[in-house]
Amino acid sequence: MSDNTDTPVTVIGLGLMGQALAGAFLKAGHPTTVWNRTASKADRLVAGGARLAPTIGDALAAGPLAIICITDYHAVRELLDADGAELGGVTLINLTSGTSAQARAAAEWAEQRGARYLDGAIMALPAAIGTVEAVILHSGSRSDFDAHAPTLGALGTVTYLGPDHGLASLYDVAGLAMMWSVLNAWLLGTALVRTAGVDAATFAPFARQIAAGVAEWLPGHAEQIDAGAFPAEASALETDARAMAHLVEESEAVGVNAELPRLIKAMADRSIAAGHGKEQYPVLIEEFSRQRGD
Amino acid sequence: MSDNTDTPVTVIGLGLMGQALAGAFLKAGHPTTVWNRTASKADRLVAGGARLAPTIGDALAAGPLAIICITDYHAVRELLDADGAELGGVTLINLTSGTSAQARAAAEWAEQRGARYLDGAIMALPAAIGTVEAVILHSGSRSDFDAHAPTLGALGTVTYLGPDHGLASLYDVAGLAMMWSVLNAWLLGTALVRTAGVDAATFAPFARQIAAGVAEWLPGHAEQIDAGAFPAEASALETDARAMAHLVEESEAVGVNAELPRLIKAMADRSIAAGHGKEQYPVLIEEFSRQRGD
Repeated sequence: MSDNTDTPVTVIGLGLMGQALAGAFLKAGHPTTVWNRTASKADRLVAGGARLAPTIGDALAAGPLAIICITDYHAVRELLDADGAELGGVTLINLTSGTSAQARAAAEWAEQRGARYLDGAIMALPAAIGTVEAVILHSGSRSDFDAHAPTLGALGTVTYLGPDHGLASLYDVAGLAMMWSVLNAWLLGTALVRTAGVDAATFAPFARQIAAGVAEWLPGHAEQIDAGAFPAEASALETDARAMAHLVEESEAVGVNAELPRLIKAMADRSIAAGHGKEQYPVLIEEFSRQRGD
Repeated sequence: MSDNTDTPVTVIGLGLMGQALAGAFLKAGHPTTVWNRTASKADRLVAGGARLAPTIGDALAAGPLAIICITDYHAVRELLDADGAELGGVTLINLTSGTSAQARAAAEWAEQRGARYLDGAIMALPAAIGTVEAVILHSGSRSDFDAHAPTLGALGTVTYLGPDHGLASLYDVAGLAMMWSVLNAWLLGTALVRTAGVDAATFAPFARQIAAGVAEWLPGHAEQIDAGAFPAEASALETDARAMAHLVEESEAVGVNAELPRLIKAMADRSIAAGHGKEQYPVLIEEFSRQRGD
């Protein structure tokens, strides 16, 4: 966001997120070229100073850096293949949502086409783009990331994860799983205390404190996983399982949805059945790492 | 912990937790009477200055405050009934684990026997008892809690939740559900990134930051629940559901356990099917409040 605001940038795809990305580049002063299948989506950006390219090839030729953010990876390939656009020399950053396997395949494809390729994942809503609140994860070549990090900084807090192009997608869904899990546990707890007439606002600070407190344990627990040894320094899994039984029993007794409590208990029960009852909670990594049909 | 260390205290039940409770009272200087079915469990406490009561009746007669912490509520009733002990005038604090319904029934029973009754739940391991880290929740009469709070302060951070005796049990399991949910989401995320060779220690700070960040949203989200209105100020549930599909797809593709991702998505899908796709995440309180067989 500092001394490189004259670097030209291309944004392909002008959905809500693409418009936010292009808008942030414009605001930071970058010459910004945009392209979208439905050209009218560019109207507001053009009024703000963007240049609407007539073709994707023209858009890609506008500068060294192109961001693409569209529906899915299939559409990315179709779009860039169909127009036979020249990718040689362009650094393509794909912020489209997909899986790690799709990201790795896209990287291989793009590099065969002569592009430098970084995969990315946006952990933010369009409204947050352009603020430090918008975390954008990147994976691929470190030098390609470093070369464009000052420009990408116009979008938010940009982070580099590693050379494996699949990392951005993996971290993205892992982060979302944490988000939904905190929200779901809070909703379950709220449902439980509401059976006793406690309102959500009264319960929320308690839930917030537990979530923030447990978050602090994670780096310590991670050491057990990396060491592959799970001594019950604080508590044994079989003790936890007895408290899980209380959670299931209470949820069923007061008539709230007990599916999450039952899943929590089932994971621990399986690990205990596999002989880990006297070990500590992180030993469940073995259950979480194992595919299981439903 | 201040000017009332001459208040006598009785502790009934000397499992690991009961021993920790009695030890904390002794350390704070309270004359401490203990009772346990197997008397030898009191040896170390007696060596530390505790008095071993020959009967429960004698233990209860030793002072105005008795703490009981044993296997389950059934055992509490059996123990205090069998010995026909006099409960009149005693404040009985039951820290035994159980459900909210058991707590309410125990309160009714104890009050019929002439006792003042508070129900409690210990959100700590025995080793933490006597430190501020040990959070102990109480529910029942506010004045009974206030009368004994200075004495109970010897055990840890004591909290009063409200007059409904079931509250301590409900908050306890709600807090545990949050704890296990944060841990499980972190384990799932760790399993996901390990498929790309990332170690647990590298991923943990990312998971910690997300958990702590989402925890901060809870009070705001609680306002929507209490208002019973869920405008999609930030994001609509149907948008979230598309990202949930990515989580399921990625988990299945890399071969980790996809049960938690599938449950997350199933809850949202049901809410969308019920017509809430354009509302915000906290509308799921309706799904979490609804009993559902498995």
